[in-house]
Amino acid sequence: MLNPIPERQWDTRRAEKRRRQALGASIATGKVIPTGDIVAFLEAVTAPGDRVVLEGNNQKQADFLSRALADADPARLHDLHMIIPSVSRVEHLDLFERGIARKLDFAYAGAQSVRISQFLADGLLEIGAIHTYIELYSRLYVDLTPHVVLTAGYKADRQGNLYTGPSTEDSPALVEAAAFRDGIVIAQVNEIVDDPADLPRVDIPGSWIDYVVQSDKPFFCEPLFTRDPRLIKPVHILMAMMAIRGIYERHNVQSLNHGIGFNTAAIELILPTYGEQLGLKGKICKYWTLNPHPTLIPAIESGWVESVHSFGSELGMEDYVAARPDVFFTGADGSMRSNRALCQLAGQYAVDLFIGSTLQIDGDGHSSTVTRGRLSGFGGAPNMGHNPGGRRHATPAWLDLIESDDPLARGRKLVVQMVETFQAGGKPTFVESIDAVQVAKDSGMPLAPVMIYGDDVTHVLTEEGIAYLYKARSLEERRRMIAAVAGVTPIGMRHDPATTRQMRSDGLIALPEDLGVHRAQATRSLLAAKSMADLVEWSGGLYNPPARFRSW
Amino acid sequence: MLNPIPERQWDTRRAEKRRRQALGASIATGKVIPTGDIVAFLEAVTAPGDRVVLEGNNQKQADFLSRALADADPARLHDLHMIIPSVSRVEHLDLFERGIARKLDFAYAGAQSVRISQFLADGLLEIGAIHTYIELYSRLYVDLTPHVVLTAGYKADRQGNLYTGPSTEDSPALVEAAAFRDGIVIAQVNEIVDDPADLPRVDIPGSWIDYVVQSDKPFFCEPLFTRDPRLIKPVHILMAMMAIRGIYERHNVQSLNHGIGFNTAAIELILPTYGEQLGLKGKICKYWTLNPHPTLIPAIESGWVESVHSFGSELGMEDYVAARPDVFFTGADGSMRSNRALCQLAGQYAVDLFIGSTLQIDGDGHSSTVTRGRLSGFGGAPNMGHNPGGRRHATPAWLDLIESDDPLARGRKLVVQMVETFQAGGKPTFVESIDAVQVAKDSGMPLAPVMIYGDDVTHVLTEEGIAYLYKARSLEERRRMIAAVAGVTPIGMRHDPATTRQMRSDGLIALPEDLGVHRAQATRSLLAAKSMADLVEWSGGLYNPPARFRSW
Repeated sequence: MLNPIPERQWDTRRAEKRRRQALGASIATGKVIPTGDIVAFLEAVTAPGDRVVLEGNNQKQADFLSRALADADPARLHDLHMIIPSVSRVEHLDLFERGIARKLDFAYAGAQSVRISQFLADGLLEIGAIHTYIELYSRLYVDLTPHVVLTAGYKADRQGNLYTGPSTEDSPALVEAAAFRDGIVIAQVNEIVDDPADLPRVDIPGSWIDYVVQSDKPFFCEPLFTRDPRLIKPVHILMAMMAIRGIYERHNVQSLNHGIGFNTAAIELILPTYGEQLGLKGKICKYWTLNPHPTLIPAIESGWVESVHSFGSELGMEDYVAARPDVFFTGADGSMRSNRALCQLAGQYAVDLFIGSTLQIDGDGHSSTVTRGRLSGFGGAPNMGHNPGGRRHATPAWLDLIESDDPLARGRKLVVQMVETFQAGGKPTFVESIDAVQVAKDSGMPLAPVMIYGDDVTHVLTEEGIAYLYKARSLEERRRMIAAVAGVTPIGMRHDPATTRQMRSDGLIALPEDLGVHRAQATRSLLAAKSMADLVEWSGGLYNPPARFRSW
Repeated sequence: MLNPIPERQWDTRRAEKRRRQALGASIATGKVIPTGDIVAFLEAVTAPGDRVVLEGNNQKQADFLSRALADADPARLHDLHMIIPSVSRVEHLDLFERGIARKLDFAYAGAQSVRISQFLADGLLEIGAIHTYIELYSRLYVDLTPHVVLTAGYKADRQGNLYTGPSTEDSPALVEAAAFRDGIVIAQVNEIVDDPADLPRVDIPGSWIDYVVQSDKPFFCEPLFTRDPRLIKPVHILMAMMAIRGIYERHNVQSLNHGIGFNTAAIELILPTYGEQLGLKGKICKYWTLNPHPTLIPAIESGWVESVHSFGSELGMEDYVAARPDVFFTGADGSMRSNRALCQLAGQYAVDLFIGSTLQIDGDGHSSTVTRGRLSGFGGAPNMGHNPGGRRHATPAWLDLIESDDPLARGRKLVVQMVETFQAGGKPTFVESIDAVQVAKDSGMPLAPVMIYGDDVTHVLTEEGIAYLYKARSLEERRRMIAAVAGVTPIGMRHDPATTRQMRSDGLIALPEDLGVHRAQATRSLLAAKSMADLVEWSGGLYNPPARFRSW
């Protein structure tokens, strides 16, 4: 037997944490950091080269902490390796411009996607990898364990017990990785209460949080899932009707996730009208994984929705959600509990269908929202928009996609791309090659940032019709099916009318008339709510839209 | 605009919870249920037809609560829909025999797998579905939201703050689903403390737990991951050598999950000897997702292991883990934090390789541990043992499996089946048809309970050699490659020596000599520890094996 090596120290991380906490002890009072001292405190407990998780979240932002970190002295803090689920704030990239940070691992970049591209080209920033949310969380427990985690909540007590309320979102998955590996966890909150009993509830236990700091202003939170019904066009309604008849009803879709486009908002808004006329209430669309979309209010009020589990919150929906605990996940205090990690899991493994939109689809069905000059990342769509090979339970919709009599045949998750054949500005959605391929080459990425791969897509739905791609027996056939619904785009121009007729009669594609969908009925009068004001009325005044949506 | 329906009540679940809590109020003192009153309490707060989650966990058992539930009066409690991740206790099935429960959703059944089969045949039990762990957790947030959750921990205070310590395991994922949907959460603990400060730490906040009860004896916890090195045979060592040279070294495997067989224990035990000789320390096998395997101790002590994140605990490893916080995830109190949901996610999305064993593999590479008369379920292997289509980040090992120059080509997760060609008792591992196919027919299951599908397997490793299945260009070629390493089993007898020679020279398969692995070196002297006593010695006396493993 070999001999153990006796001299190794096995608690270097813990000792280092204690060393840093000692440095911070003169600034903090117990766990509480004075608001004005946050920059000095971050400089004290962070070290050059650290892996720092910053809750740049899809919605909730630890923005007081990110601004403070960006104000640090680059002579003291430099070469940080930032792990940011969603790069959404100007200061997230200021960190790189100022030399405080060097390397970036992330999942999504919205408004900052152009700047990331530029910084990468300018050598200001090195990208570790672009992930989906849950694979980024996963790596925090494997090879990207953090030294420091910066998170955000509504309230905390002086023991660090944290109330994150409706905006729990990414926090638990991020915090646990540091709390149990001798990392340092700092939470910004809008308010620190003296009495723990003044917290509405505890979302994250105080023993996981090392420090709390009251922010200079409430954390920023973005309403990303609010779609004004005024902007829904008849073409969206036509497509929504096709989705309901040709996909939801046909395959018996019970549980689902909707993307955030006007297409899917139209589906939500015609369930209480068109869906009701078809007698589908209580038969389809009962269980949802999505943020509290305001456009779902009429369907909820009409009794369509059994439950909604949410990734995150939606500004303005707080009171409505709290008043509908039979539908939404809420705590004993009444406010919602969201959890992005669990909802992404549910969206991957527990729902029948994912339906979303995209900017570009190629002839094979590969799609991406990455376009030249924009490294927008993935978010969660690739997790929900693929057929999870680890799934082992069956549902009627999942089984309905089996096209073989092999005893080992499996069902499939329904992955629907719902797009108009042309984008705003006349750009074709169906293209010869998606920009993502060139972006990968330009940026030296090891693989093209494809959002959803063609072989995962089961249905393509356009204003022309539905291609039932899961029925394709070859790549060639899949291409023909896509071309048949791609309108007058370059891909659509390839289609051969004779083949299209044959594919219609074979059930490979369906036009509105094949589904019993009447184009004349596709008007805005089918919308259960036609404006934000209508949504407020449906909600009994409980929905409180953010100012920028208040046009009435 | 349609009019909202004004009369609906939106808090029926909350009202029902309050009604039940009122029934239990005469029994409990605040949140504390007297131990002797647990049956009456369960009868009070549970209703016929409820969905009840019971922490039958892979290791930790809420066994006081399951025994109490099985003692309930079937006239009061009947037709429960049980959701049990791991059906492991006799009383889990007594519930069905006594008519208290009717329907079962589960993920894994070990010792109870035969009885489930019998009960199903006898009509005593109806199966919802057989899941993997994380898809079962996922459904708790979609269509299987629970009315009651029964969980277990070490300690609680009177406010319900729960210390689950090294055995946190399934609890957070199960509890959250009820805590935030007006379900009732009851936790059994070994000890109730008066002062919250007497809890080592808080793993689940008190505001999520409705009731705590001190159990009559400490919760049962099974050491499932302990393998006695005495039982490792030279053939395991030969296969372990091939794994290290032909897979780990070749593909640059940094992060991985090991199954629980003697094969993978052999790999763990020759890293400090054979792996060291090859100069691989610090180059491979740095990040692990697995329970604290005792056979990993020598590799940890020799400095091979950067980190281990765990699904659950392992009896006897508590002190060792607590003394190695640089390696294991531990809390400020020193004890480990496991988390099955997060570790399953990490094992799915954040590691390069999964390697495991199985009982049967067919000629196409499909495998299962389900055999006739045993409905053993899936556990977590299908999640880790597939190529997750939602993955978007690259690692060297993942990229190394690309076999095409298509710019849209993706890497793959390494999924390795490591099996001897014959099982104990001379049963062939490689078979014409896996029993799972017939079991599905006999039990009326909608699909065959396949553990890992052939198209997800990248490597098959036997004592004969390695088949690099990811290189197969057709199903036919995959079959030939499998046959070439299947020895003298019915599948192996199909192989054609001339083809085998060609496949060796094409790099599709490799025999030990092709890998530079010397059969003569494959002896037990290569094991860093040859017995449980050796493991204890390596651990500096910190590892404390359960009595049944103490043979010295």
